[in-house]
Amino acid sequence: MSKPLERLLSQRTASMQRNQIREILNVVSQPNMISLAGGLPAPESFPIEELYAIQEAVLDRFGADALQYDVTEGFAPFREALASYLAGKSVRAGAEDLLVFNGSQSALDMLGKVLISPGDIIALESPSYLGAISAFSAYEPRYISIETDDGGLIPEALEAALARQPVKFLYLVTTFQNPTGRSLSAERRQAIAEILRAYDALAIEDDPYSDLRFRGEAPPPLHHFAPENTVYVSTLSKIFAPGLRLGFCLAPPPIRKWLYTAKQGADLHSNTYAQALAAEYVTGGYIERQVPKIIELYRPRQETMLKAMAAHFPAGYRWTEPEGGMFIWVEGPDGIDTEDLYWKAVEKGVAFVPGKFFFINEGEGLPTMRLNFTKVDEATIQGAVATLGRVMRDF
Amino acid sequence: MSKPLERLLSQRTASMQRNQIREILNVVSQPNMISLAGGLPAPESFPIEELYAIQEAVLDRFGADALQYDVTEGFAPFREALASYLAGKSVRAGAEDLLVFNGSQSALDMLGKVLISPGDIIALESPSYLGAISAFSAYEPRYISIETDDGGLIPEALEAALARQPVKFLYLVTTFQNPTGRSLSAERRQAIAEILRAYDALAIEDDPYSDLRFRGEAPPPLHHFAPENTVYVSTLSKIFAPGLRLGFCLAPPPIRKWLYTAKQGADLHSNTYAQALAAEYVTGGYIERQVPKIIELYRPRQETMLKAMAAHFPAGYRWTEPEGGMFIWVEGPDGIDTEDLYWKAVEKGVAFVPGKFFFINEGEGLPTMRLNFTKVDEATIQGAVATLGRVMRDF
Repeated sequence: MSKPLERLLSQRTASMQRNQIREILNVVSQPNMISLAGGLPAPESFPIEELYAIQEAVLDRFGADALQYDVTEGFAPFREALASYLAGKSVRAGAEDLLVFNGSQSALDMLGKVLISPGDIIALESPSYLGAISAFSAYEPRYISIETDDGGLIPEALEAALARQPVKFLYLVTTFQNPTGRSLSAERRQAIAEILRAYDALAIEDDPYSDLRFRGEAPPPLHHFAPENTVYVSTLSKIFAPGLRLGFCLAPPPIRKWLYTAKQGADLHSNTYAQALAAEYVTGGYIERQVPKIIELYRPRQETMLKAMAAHFPAGYRWTEPEGGMFIWVEGPDGIDTEDLYWKAVEKGVAFVPGKFFFINEGEGLPTMRLNFTKVDEATIQGAVATLGRVMRDF
Repeated sequence: MSKPLERLLSQRTASMQRNQIREILNVVSQPNMISLAGGLPAPESFPIEELYAIQEAVLDRFGADALQYDVTEGFAPFREALASYLAGKSVRAGAEDLLVFNGSQSALDMLGKVLISPGDIIALESPSYLGAISAFSAYEPRYISIETDDGGLIPEALEAALARQPVKFLYLVTTFQNPTGRSLSAERRQAIAEILRAYDALAIEDDPYSDLRFRGEAPPPLHHFAPENTVYVSTLSKIFAPGLRLGFCLAPPPIRKWLYTAKQGADLHSNTYAQALAAEYVTGGYIERQVPKIIELYRPRQETMLKAMAAHFPAGYRWTEPEGGMFIWVEGPDGIDTEDLYWKAVEKGVAFVPGKFFFINEGEGLPTMRLNFTKVDEATIQGAVATLGRVMRDF
C-alpha cells in the first residue's frame, strides 16, 4: 500500500524537513550522555510544589469553564494576565489584542500560513532559530540571510536586503538569541524600527528568553519601537513550563484578523485548562517569585560554563558571553567542521549542536557550535566542558 | 498602515473562511438566549470532582515529566492508554502507531497540510462537518459532495465519484454524524471499505461521537474494515473535556510519517500536562465510570427533545432519531429557508443552526436545521422546542 499512498502527498511535503536538532537529540538520548545540545529548561525550574495549589485554585475558581470549549483568541483571564505581564516589558497590549497559541511554535506556523505564498522571500538572521525555519518551510518560502556580528543583526545589512528585493518579513530573536545568545542593543532596535517603517516592512520578533536576564539592563523589545511593523511572539515555556504549550502573539490588526481565522481552522482554540493554570500563575503572584528562582538556578550554571571554557578550551576558540538566556555560541578555528568534533565528543559522552545546522546556506558556520547551560547542574557542566576541551585539543 | 500590511497576506488567505457556526454563536451569546445551536458538551458532564484527584496523581506520578517538552508523537503513557481504549472499539493500534494532536481539529489541519495541494479534490458527505471544511480550506482544495440518505453516505454515489475523477480523500463522520446524527451501518462500512480498496482511495474517518451511544449496537469503525485505506481521527473532547484539546490519529505509515514531520514544524508537540491528565483518566478507571454518567445525562435530554418535537413541530417537518451523539437533524417543508426561521426564533430567545451552512453548494439544504440536545437540561429543551414549534407554525 505504501506506494499508492505516497502518491497522495501534497506538493508542500517536499519542502518540509525534520528538525535536525530533534534528530540529533534522538541520537544522544542514550544513558550516561551529558547533553549540552538541547534547549530544555531545567526540570527543577518548574514550580511543581506551587502547581498543587495552582491547579486546585483553578478548579475552585473557574470550574467547568476551564474545561470547556473556548474562544479562538484565548481564555480571557489569561489574556488579561498576559496584558499586565507584557506592560512590565514595555509591550503595550490590551487583552483584546492578544492571541494565544499552542506554544510560540504554533504562532510561527500560523504566521507562515497567513503570510507566506510559495516562493516568497523571508529574511533571517544568520544564524537563525531552526524551529522557525521548520514552521515556515511548510509554506514553501525562499530564505535570505542577513549578516550579523557580535551585536546581532546588522541594520545596514537589513536595509541593503530590503532595497534589493521584496521581502515578506524579517524573522529575528532580539534578546539572547537562539543559537548565539546575542542581543540587539536599544540603538540597533531603533535603527531596525526606522528601516522597517521606511520600507513598509514587517518583522516577526520572537522573544522567548528576555526574562532570563542574569546581568545588565533590558532594552525594550523591537515591538516597542515599531508596533505597527512588528508581530511580537513570546511564550511562557521558559518561565513556567514548556509542556503546557503557552505561546502568544501581538500582531497589527489586519494580520491579527487572519491569524484568528487561520487558528480557528487549525485547532479551534488553545488548551483552556493550561491557560487557566497560567492565568493563576501570573495573577496569583507566582511568576514574580518563580522567575528570580529560575535566574538564580541558571546564572551559576552559565558562570560555571564560561569559567570552564576559559580554563579548558584551546587557543583558536572564542565564544559569546550573553547576559542571560540559555545558550553560549562558540566559534572554533577556520577549517574545522564541528560535526566531526560532535561525533568525537559523543564518543566521550558529551553532546552539543554543531552550529552549521542554524545556517541556511550549505558550508556556512562549519566551525561553530551551540552549548546549552540550563539543563544540567554545575558539576556536570564543569566535567562536560573539560571533556569537550580535551576533545578539541586532540582534534 | 492597514493597506501595506494587507499586501503581505498569503494567497491562501483568500480561501480561508471564518467558521460560520462560531459567528452565529457569537450573535447568540446574549443573556437569556437558549442555544440549541452549539456542539458543546454539558459542563456538568465534566469529571470536575475527579480532576482534583487526577491532577494530584499526575504531579505525584509524573512530576516534571508532565511539564517538560515532549516527543512530537505524544506523551508515551497517554498513547499507551489510548491504544487499550481503542482496542475496546475494534480499532487495532499500538501506542507507536498513534499521533496526538491539539484536538481532532489539529489532526484535520495537519492532514490537510500533508495531503492537499491547491486544486485537489476532496469528497465530502452532503451535508458535512463544517470544522473539517474550515481546516481543509486553508490548503485550497476543491470539494465535491457525495449523496447521502437516512443511512448516511451512499456507497454507490461514492463509487461513481471515484470513477469520475481523481479524489485526494473522502472525509466522513461515520457514527452520529455532525450535523445529521446519522450512522453508517456495518454493511455500508464494509461496502465503502471495498470501494476504497478497489480505487486505492483514502478515507479520513472522524469518530468523535461513537462513545455517546444511548441505544442499539455499535458497528466497528470503517478503519476496522479498511485499515490501510483509512486515517482514523478521534478525540476525548466528548468523553472527558474539550478544553484539554486531546485529539489523536491513526494513519497508514507513509501518511503518519509526514504527519509527524508536519506537526513538528507546526507545534513541536501537544500539551504534555493535558495528556498526562488523560492518561490517568483512562488508566485510573475514571473513563469507565464517567462515560455511562454522560450517557445517562444526555439520553433523557434527547428523548425529551424527540418527544417535544413530535408534540410541537407542525406537519411538513421530519427529523432523524439517532441512537446517540449530540444532534438531531430537521428537514422542513420544501421552499423554506431556515435562516429566516432562525432570526424569528432568535427573537423569541431560541437559537439553532440553519442547515444550509453544512452544504458546500449554495442553495442546498435550505429547509434543514441542526438541533443540539446536550448543552441544556430537559425543562429548557422542552420549552425551547415548544417555542420553535410556535415559530414554525407562525412562519
